Amino acid sequence: MGILDFFKTRPKNTASVAKERLRIIVAQERAQRGSPDYLPLLRRELLEVIKKYVNVDPDAVLINVEREGDQEVLELSVTLPDKAPDFATGQV
Amino acid sequence: MGILDFFKTRPKNTASVAKERLRIIVAQERAQRGSPDYLPLLRRELLEVIKKYVNVDPDAVLINVEREGDQEVLELSVTLPDKAPDFATGQV
Repeated sequence: MGILDFFKTRPKNTASVAKERLRIIVAQERAQRGSPDYLPLLRRELLEVIKKYVNVDPDAVLINVEREGDQEVLELSVTLPDKAPDFATGQV
Repeated sequence: MGILDFFKTRPKNTASVAKERLRIIVAQERAQRGSPDYLPLLRRELLEVIKKYVNVDPDAVLINVEREGDQEVLELSVTLPDKAPDFATGQV
């Protein structure tokens, strides 16, 4: 299954007015037990990166973590504001 | 399909010695044409975030971008070095 197909299976924008959405998924495949857990670190930093460009309402961020065997997955789903940021000035 | 199931379908570690792998996927669902394209920005910043914690060999980073309709997906796949970073000192 290609990656685009995967996102087609995910619940689409259910809002009557289609919203801009950004999804960030971080998956760690561990080779051995006890190797560092990057997800908590990346979770905070990824949000900071997004906030640099988009005025994110904390309530508009869904966080999902799943673990199984050597796989650990973090999913951040951010509904973006209607007003697009001004990249030139970096104003959001 | 759940997110963990998706990663099970992806090619596993083919290296004889299992390697630590980190995959970051960013998917943007656009509500209207002409809305800002966050992926190029995030692509660079995400790599910078990872490099803060892990000594990443640029050759060990695979980048894949797929676009279809209102969906755009960026995938960064990073094979991590064997030696774990020392989080306390931030030394990688």
